[in-house]
Amino acid sequence: MTRKPSLNLRNTLVAVAALSLFAALLPPSATAAEPMAGGQMMIERAKILAQPNVFGVFTTFKLRPEWNRVPAAKRVMAADELKKLIEKHKNNVLVDVYLTRGLKASSDFLFRVNAYDLDKAQTFMREFRATGIGRNADVTETLVGLTKPLNYITKDKSPGLSAGLGSATYSGPPPRYVVVIPVKKNAEWWNLPAEQRLREMETHTSPTLAFLVNVKRKLYHSTGLDDTDFITYFETDDLGAFNNLMINLASVPENKFQVRVGSPTILGTIHSPEEVMKALAE
Amino acid sequence: MTRKPSLNLRNTLVAVAALSLFAALLPPSATAAEPMAGGQMMIERAKILAQPNVFGVFTTFKLRPEWNRVPAAKRVMAADELKKLIEKHKNNVLVDVYLTRGLKASSDFLFRVNAYDLDKAQTFMREFRATGIGRNADVTETLVGLTKPLNYITKDKSPGLSAGLGSATYSGPPPRYVVVIPVKKNAEWWNLPAEQRLREMETHTSPTLAFLVNVKRKLYHSTGLDDTDFITYFETDDLGAFNNLMINLASVPENKFQVRVGSPTILGTIHSPEEVMKALAE
Amino acid sequence: MTRKPSLNLRNTLVAVAALSLFAALLPPSATAAEPMAGGQMMIERAKILAQPNVFGVFTTFKLRPEWNRVPAAKRVMAADELKKLIEKHKNNVLVDVYLTRGLKASSDFLFRVNAYDLDKAQTFMREFRATGIGRNADVTETLVGLTKPLNYITKDKSPGLSAGLGSATYSGPPPRYVVVIPVKKNAEWWNLPAEQRLREMETHTSPTLAFLVNVKRKLYHSTGLDDTDFITYFETDDLGAFNNLMINLASVPENKFQVRVGSPTILGTIHSPEEVMKALAE
Amino acid sequence: MTRKPSLNLRNTLVAVAALSLFAALLPPSATAAEPMAGGQMMIERAKILAQPNVFGVFTTFKLRPEWNRVPAAKRVMAADELKKLIEKHKNNVLVDVYLTRGLKASSDFLFRVNAYDLDKAQTFMREFRATGIGRNADVTETLVGLTKPLNYITKDKSPGLSAGLGSATYSGPPPRYVVVIPVKKNAEWWNLPAEQRLREMETHTSPTLAFLVNVKRKLYHSTGLDDTDFITYFETDDLGAFNNLMINLASVPENKFQVRVGSPTILGTIHSPEEVMKALAE
Amino acid sequence: MTRKPSLNLRNTLVAVAALSLFAALLPPSATAAEPMAGGQMMIERAKILAQPNVFGVFTTFKLRPEWNRVPAAKRVMAADELKKLIEKHKNNVLVDVYLTRGLKASSDFLFRVNAYDLDKAQTFMREFRATGIGRNADVTETLVGLTKPLNYITKDKSPGLSAGLGSATYSGPPPRYVVVIPVKKNAEWWNLPAEQRLREMETHTSPTLAFLVNVKRKLYHSTGLDDTDFITYFETDDLGAFNNLMINLASVPENKFQVRVGSPTILGTIHSPEEVMKALAE
Repeated sequence: MTRKPSLNLRNTLVAVAALSLFAALLPPSATAAEPMAGGQMMIERAKILAQPNVFGVFTTFKLRPEWNRVPAAKRVMAADELKKLIEKHKNNVLVDVYLTRGLKASSDFLFRVNAYDLDKAQTFMREFRATGIGRNADVTETLVGLTKPLNYITKDKSPGLSAGLGSATYSGPPPRYVVVIPVKKNAEWWNLPAEQRLREMETHTSPTLAFLVNVKRKLYHSTGLDDTDFITYFETDDLGAFNNLMINLASVPENKFQVRVGSPTILGTIHSPEEVMKALAE
Repeated sequence: MTRKPSLNLRNTLVAVAALSLFAALLPPSATAAEPMAGGQMMIERAKILAQPNVFGVFTTFKLRPEWNRVPAAKRVMAADELKKLIEKHKNNVLVDVYLTRGLKASSDFLFRVNAYDLDKAQTFMREFRATGIGRNADVTETLVGLTKPLNYITKDKSPGLSAGLGSATYSGPPPRYVVVIPVKKNAEWWNLPAEQRLREMETHTSPTLAFLVNVKRKLYHSTGLDDTDFITYFETDDLGAFNNLMINLASVPENKFQVRVGSPTILGTIHSPEEVMKALAE
Repeated sequence: MTRKPSLNLRNTLVAVAALSLFAALLPPSATAAEPMAGGQMMIERAKILAQPNVFGVFTTFKLRPEWNRVPAAKRVMAADELKKLIEKHKNNVLVDVYLTRGLKASSDFLFRVNAYDLDKAQTFMREFRATGIGRNADVTETLVGLTKPLNYITKDKSPGLSAGLGSATYSGPPPRYVVVIPVKKNAEWWNLPAEQRLREMETHTSPTLAFLVNVKRKLYHSTGLDDTDFITYFETDDLGAFNNLMINLASVPENKFQVRVGSPTILGTIHSPEEVMKALAE
Repeated sequence: MTRKPSLNLRNTLVAVAALSLFAALLPPSATAAEPMAGGQMMIERAKILAQPNVFGVFTTFKLRPEWNRVPAAKRVMAADELKKLIEKHKNNVLVDVYLTRGLKASSDFLFRVNAYDLDKAQTFMREFRATGIGRNADVTETLVGLTKPLNYITKDKSPGLSAGLGSATYSGPPPRYVVVIPVKKNAEWWNLPAEQRLREMETHTSPTLAFLVNVKRKLYHSTGLDDTDFITYFETDDLGAFNNLMINLASVPENKFQVRVGSPTILGTIHSPEEVMKALAE
Repeated sequence: MTRKPSLNLRNTLVAVAALSLFAALLPPSATAAEPMAGGQMMIERAKILAQPNVFGVFTTFKLRPEWNRVPAAKRVMAADELKKLIEKHKNNVLVDVYLTRGLKASSDFLFRVNAYDLDKAQTFMREFRATGIGRNADVTETLVGLTKPLNYITKDKSPGLSAGLGSATYSGPPPRYVVVIPVKKNAEWWNLPAEQRLREMETHTSPTLAFLVNVKRKLYHSTGLDDTDFITYFETDDLGAFNNLMINLASVPENKFQVRVGSPTILGTIHSPEEVMKALAE
């Protein structure tokens, strides 16, 4: 497996403009997704990753020991099998796969499936479970969330910060690393007056502006859908900068209201789906 | 597996009038169930789902890897085998099955069994364990509760809200999604004076009225029967609305007394039992 | 398996007079057990269940998938094998077995072994592990405790309540259900002055008197013997009444000192040992 | 397996003078161990159990189901194999084995290995893992600690209590039971001034003096070596007295600083290593 | 397996100058690593262990029972296979292996992989998973961190302590033991003003100076990369001194802000990679 991610995935990621900090995940012009009738149109990466009302299903898998006993000739078919499955569902879901083996104890690879309909993401994941590699892997974690319009740092509520976020753009090399961190807030947070929560989110956002050049972020909401309130998703090529960003986020009062940060923190490398499958077939 | 739920299940669900918010799970006219002597009468869905003193057993299953090694010809028999088992027990239990594979790490499917006698629900679940698919699945969670007459938002104690709940009716499309969330409250809650608990439940109920058109709810009580106080059960076709509802419920003082919300949060899709079995036989 | 418990077990249970609430587990006339020398006398149910200084070992088992692959002709031998084992140890231990399959995720059956010597209970459980069914089952929980003379609600310390407990008698139908709940109290509780603990236990006991007609209770002490302070054991035929009782117990200040209630809450049905084995051999 | 422990183990245990309460685990005359050069001298039980700077490794094992499928003729060899292994390492480690099967869910037997060099204890445990029974058992818990000179209740700091401890001697029958309980204290405890900690330990020690006739104790220190601060080890023949002792220890302010007590509490019976192996070979 | 660590590993460790306490992990002259282009240069142990911006991946493995069934002739090949793999990756990663079997329940051996690029550490660990022993072992824990320049006890901020740390040098025998302890601090800590955190770290550092002769330390930062803030790594030959050091660190106010210390605490012995493999092949 080569360390360099496949070009087409890279380009698309770079093409997504300003997937910036939590409060600025969507360009101001983003409009609500119009679910496709009949699923005739292929999912567009740049669009679905920028829209609200999109479901994200994050699933980690750990290969069972039996996978080692599958003949090598069969194991290498995993890449092609997954490619065909993604092609089959291209009108329903956008699929990203990441390699976590070697960096996480509880998983070997991670799927992120974006879809306008959650049941279509479910169908894709269910069919993956029936593939050769899927049958030899245990699901070790699933996180479900959906994207929503901006809540706190909007043009109206916080014009200065909103402008700051709008003008910050990722300018690093194509990210090699992905980090997914579920976050849950306590009852005290949710019971705060809206104005105080806005102030806390402003204090949260200010020190992060400087990191927008090095770290891309995307936010999914999960309250009621899963045992977390948020799924925070990051891509970066500079894990040192990312570590500093996370220390900054730990150092604001909002953090005192967080009862779950990680558990698990999922860390992986970015590759095309085929590359991940090939690496695991070795 | 088709995404569209089978018509007969759908119709029945729609027929259940006003399975509304926690405080309004039962129409005011609901009377206590009269346990059937001898079990000669078939369980009526609309009735048993609206009565107090009904037991609910929620059980999630995860297929073991061996299931993949069962010949396909045998796997497809699961649907028919379950259908016959449900028919055999139709005078004792009402059975719903949901598909969680793809949305939850720890399960592939969920049973909800309603019964006037808990031991009859046990007998059904035990016999399911002896079926072909049941022998190849691990039980990963069981939650047991029972329905009870309204406690807080009654015509007497809170007439305004009670009327509001009574007039709110689900009017969305047939729900595609089910969510089951166990909730446990702390000793401080149970030690509050009854009047204060009533006030907190009123504060809990008010912001939820608007969601009754999009979300159906049902409540089971579990204190002493299980490691939870309540099993909250939801059906919806609009998970975005459901997410907003749950944020509203997180934002009232009552939430400060909750020590368990979820863990697990069970999320699945609604289908006929046969459809679920077929999907898992693929 | 028939739902009706075997008559001989039922009768014995009914014969045990006034196994009432925590504070009244022993009739005032109960005297300390005299451990038998040499084990020549058969254990008497009514006596051992009413005496202090008796050990209780609660063990839950979950059948492994291999059990399904044991030939049916061998599986049905489990009932007879257990019967013989109980007969062999009848001078050393009193054995009760309950069916939890279908009601609990982590177990299929529960043993309660009462003995004057803990090592005799250990020997019985060890020999059960060597039987056909024992070899195909995993132990999923063991709780060890011992009975002790009354501590708080005695004739001297709390004459009124003591009389109330003494006169309350179970009058429901033979119980079909068993519930076992471990309870652990925090350091604050144990550091309270004895008089305050007495007051709290009186407040705990008063609202429970009304339930003595529907629920039988028995208490084992475990501090230092296990990761719990108490093992509370209940039998009832009316789980609705039991749920109300437990809500009453949750609503007194004593509950604020409890750091473990359940985890697990074990819920099962009452049958003769042979019936439980037969049900699991199907 | 006979219930009576083998005489030689018993005698040695009785020979260990005054293994009394935590604060008095070592007779005042005990001097620091002189690690043996070259390991030429056999470990002396009475000496190593009374010295500071001795490592204790506690390891619980649970037999895997495969053990049942090992032919009986091979299973019975476990006793002899262990005997030889202990003989081989007699210059390096002191080995005790206890039977936990039937009393604990997560283990079947427990090793306590005392050694002047931790790596020698490791080597012994590693070689046990390579024996016939060791290969069929999973390690379910390991606790590592070391003995240290008295800290609080010394002749200088607390002369009265120190004398009380010195004169208290175990006078019960040879203990049949062992209990091992890890204890961890919180940051508040460790930040208390030394004088206050001394006072708390005096309050802890006073009510325990009366139990020294019935319970033997030994203390290992684990801060930094394991996820616990202490491993408390007890032997007794009177579990009722032990339960009362532990309630006394729960009822002093020191307990408020304890964040881990047990988890697991390991309870077993005392036998010679061969007897334990024989019991598990049945 | 001989207890004496291989000379070449020992010498290198001794050669690393002053791997002292947390605040002094890097000699003042250490400069940021310059990642190697093309990986043509072999990783230098003394350099990479003293530089900031170096990733550390800690991974524990537990052998599966199947390993026992691999023929001995194949098992012994593990040492050679690992040696070749390390040679293959010598330009990308620095690999240390430790033996934990016998001292920890959840692992048999521990890898520490240091690398300038995290994905190169991942590739090494992934290829190890494909070796004979790697295929028969489960990953039970992975911790990822990176080294950073000094933060608190610098020449500028705390000149006295900085000098004290600079002059303290390890002077004990070659360490036989390794301890790895993850540490996570709470939101209150991260929200303290920088000056107060400096003061707390000074209070933390002072009592540790005396232990620098007996204990080597190294610090990795993990906030955002894993469910911990720090990975603390220790080598010592004197576990009694280490235990005293850790009690000292528990006894300062900084400890009140720590919500995770250990869980797991990983304790092992230091050997060459081949020695570890040989010990596990026995």
